[in-house]
Amino acid sequence: MKGFRTNQMIAVDWKPNKQDKTPIYRQIVEYISEKIAAGDWPIGSRLPSQRDMAQTFGVNRSTVVSAMEELISYGILESDFGGGTRVASNTWSIRMSQPPDWNKYIRSGFFRPNLDTIQTINHMEFEPGYIRIGTGELSPELYPGKLVSKIFRRMPERIPSLGYLGPLGLPELGEALAQWLAVNQGIEAKASNIMVASGSLQGLQLVSVCMLKRGSNIYTEAPSYLKSLQVFQSAEMCLHGVQMDEEGLEYWKIKDASNDSLLYTIPSYHNPTGTVMSERRRGEVMNFCQSRQMPILEDDAYGQLWFDEKPPKSLKARDKTGSVIYMGTISKTMAPGLRIGWVVGPEAVVYRLGDVKMQTDYGASSVSQWMMTELLTSGDYDIYLETLRRELKARRDNALTSLSQYFKGIATWNKPSGGFYIWLCLKHRVFMDRVFADALKAGILLNPGNMYDYGENHAIRLSYAYADPEDLRKALKILADIIEKHQKR
Amino acid sequence: MKGFRTNQMIAVDWKPNKQDKTPIYRQIVEYISEKIAAGDWPIGSRLPSQRDMAQTFGVNRSTVVSAMEELISYGILESDFGGGTRVASNTWSIRMSQPPDWNKYIRSGFFRPNLDTIQTINHMEFEPGYIRIGTGELSPELYPGKLVSKIFRRMPERIPSLGYLGPLGLPELGEALAQWLAVNQGIEAKASNIMVASGSLQGLQLVSVCMLKRGSNIYTEAPSYLKSLQVFQSAEMCLHGVQMDEEGLEYWKIKDASNDSLLYTIPSYHNPTGTVMSERRRGEVMNFCQSRQMPILEDDAYGQLWFDEKPPKSLKARDKTGSVIYMGTISKTMAPGLRIGWVVGPEAVVYRLGDVKMQTDYGASSVSQWMMTELLTSGDYDIYLETLRRELKARRDNALTSLSQYFKGIATWNKPSGGFYIWLCLKHRVFMDRVFADALKAGILLNPGNMYDYGENHAIRLSYAYADPEDLRKALKILADIIEKHQKR
Repeated sequence: MKGFRTNQMIAVDWKPNKQDKTPIYRQIVEYISEKIAAGDWPIGSRLPSQRDMAQTFGVNRSTVVSAMEELISYGILESDFGGGTRVASNTWSIRMSQPPDWNKYIRSGFFRPNLDTIQTINHMEFEPGYIRIGTGELSPELYPGKLVSKIFRRMPERIPSLGYLGPLGLPELGEALAQWLAVNQGIEAKASNIMVASGSLQGLQLVSVCMLKRGSNIYTEAPSYLKSLQVFQSAEMCLHGVQMDEEGLEYWKIKDASNDSLLYTIPSYHNPTGTVMSERRRGEVMNFCQSRQMPILEDDAYGQLWFDEKPPKSLKARDKTGSVIYMGTISKTMAPGLRIGWVVGPEAVVYRLGDVKMQTDYGASSVSQWMMTELLTSGDYDIYLETLRRELKARRDNALTSLSQYFKGIATWNKPSGGFYIWLCLKHRVFMDRVFADALKAGILLNPGNMYDYGENHAIRLSYAYADPEDLRKALKILADIIEKHQKR
Repeated sequence: MKGFRTNQMIAVDWKPNKQDKTPIYRQIVEYISEKIAAGDWPIGSRLPSQRDMAQTFGVNRSTVVSAMEELISYGILESDFGGGTRVASNTWSIRMSQPPDWNKYIRSGFFRPNLDTIQTINHMEFEPGYIRIGTGELSPELYPGKLVSKIFRRMPERIPSLGYLGPLGLPELGEALAQWLAVNQGIEAKASNIMVASGSLQGLQLVSVCMLKRGSNIYTEAPSYLKSLQVFQSAEMCLHGVQMDEEGLEYWKIKDASNDSLLYTIPSYHNPTGTVMSERRRGEVMNFCQSRQMPILEDDAYGQLWFDEKPPKSLKARDKTGSVIYMGTISKTMAPGLRIGWVVGPEAVVYRLGDVKMQTDYGASSVSQWMMTELLTSGDYDIYLETLRRELKARRDNALTSLSQYFKGIATWNKPSGGFYIWLCLKHRVFMDRVFADALKAGILLNPGNMYDYGENHAIRLSYAYADPEDLRKALKILADIIEKHQKR
């Protein structure tokens, strides 16, 4: 697990030089001293286990033990509870100056670190060799390289300069989005109602710092993607999960709808359950919220990814009173690396969001915005989506086949009609941490359902968008065995 | 001033259809009613003056007066203090549902709106026809279109996919930056010490939410670019200005250097004064901060833009204990639209910043990151910088000539040896708001010094980077007259 770090676990990514005359254990002592002196490893940081270090360094464990003993004798390291080792001091050398107490700073900011599981997943996703069965991203195999190259070739004549842009983003993209949202989705919006964001995650971030105060109530489907994020929780807002049935959010269970709360919903191909809110439910949710003047934040990341028929119209398309803030993105349909999302709402709202965006990062990359404009206005994006839908549908079918084969007795699941996700509900309780760890050992990276949920649950978010279909089949077979082993009947 | 909005001032950007049979005043009534019904103009929003509306609509003022009277009689609008008009109600029609009280939400978030002057400037910068004498941005004329096209053409083979990236950004860019920082600036950093940000403004934003708590003390030069931003002030931190002499920050005036404070400094071609911190002062500042374990946030946006000789080595290049968080960017040297900046610091620090970046926007555009990588590794960036330095130096000379011609009796100023800025200190007091307004009337957009300073001041930030040299000369001539008129001797 080279390079793997939790919050304060140190990354060790170095090897001694075996050609060097300096003894190996001495090289290790010096390497560790230097990392600490440079402030890279603050006081209190935990070192990896001796076994892991020996493996990373490519040396015997006894060599590591000698080095650690020496460092402990200097008072540079100290033994940790639980048999580990941590950084004890950075003042051994006769130096006037010491690094700042960075760990203290790091713990100071109000923005919480990611959940441990999520930090682990974020890191493991960049380690090769794992089959990623929950990743909410299109497989690199689906990357439309030719289309992107075509768009690149048109850029030089399209882009007049790469200066700063205004609060709402590139005006040409605003116009193109207004047009596309009208034709494609029946959403009536002018460019002045649309703010381009660096992905829809930034849209959420802006809403949290611009529009809500500490203690505001935010209702979401239970489970919800939003629960896996720290964005609202760091801003000290209260997330409340609302149960779902097969038609979507059971809005009548929202107890305290008031006008400083907000409903966050993913009506189409919900993350993580794949549910589509029904036509009828959408109308009811709109009435419920509008009559209470409760704003809706509609996340439509997956709405374009339908397989057999379009989902019902978005809430925003039904919104005649400006009650809905709508978010769309290209991250799930084509290229998260572009970092382009859009927020559609009343002018006063998008203007406030844009003003703060100017203060946090001055807007999204204009190269990306020009590329997105070209994708939309050329019609290439719509053509591409048709191909993608067929491909994703085939991948869904493959996943469903494997599930019937391996999971019949162990779990239940939905048959998604679009999007990325299958919500696999285990029939019996397991310790999910152990399943996660065993799967990891078997080379499988999974997304445990409790990342998304409010209480205990025994579900796993599967995604058929990322892993190679044959790999996914293999991984599901192995996972079924692991789960059977862990079931507490 | 079409399209101009302060915080709650409404933008009116519409014209009645004179071919339509509906009377013009009726069309205005309907237009305004619809904007209010749609939630675009929340209750309490102020309308532009009747004169401004008449001008924008292209109608007689009396037509606007009729429309307003009708809307007031319906209770939709009401007269505001000071003779204006504002939105009074959105419930006139017999409707079940109303828009949420958006103005209440908009005022709720903890992130403050931009200062009024800055909002005005942000907006006016997108209005054509003004000579912008303070804009901290390269002129579009300096945009290296050919170079960018060349880089674009290489992209298709460079970019393998556009997936999500890890917490530190594109690994290839990290390596390229490490190499470039070593060769070009003597900064020793590994890729694991470097985080790619969406511009260095995002670096500041991340430091504010990750590393500092409410009430933390932040010291800056007085004046400072940082003072014009809300980023730390919104996070309820205390900014303290420290006076400067010709060698830079008078660090000995920092009273309460402690280990939950931070020093923010722009040692090279300081924004807004153009000052370069001397070799000696840099050494002293490092000693002062290191002996107090006070971290330094070094903003080196302009360090590459030297004219005759390189500035002294950056603080980061002197930093052996990991006391400095260093920020660089391409926004001032080439293309702010790329939104690429870099933060260099101890691993534990950049890792924490990267973890939170993953939660706020999932990182900078990977297209931009690949382009930056190509710029650095091809050597094209360094070659381009040589040309740019010559061009900027010529523009500086032009500005200095005009100043000697028009401002001798009215102001004093520095002769910058790099960067963008001249700090024009007026000899006599003026009401800066009136100078700003009169300049705007004369077609000149300026950046008043008090945006950047801690108390009252009578300075103006000039930038020779943006305006056409001949336009700048003309604008300075006019500005000198305006200032003379307003001086209170």
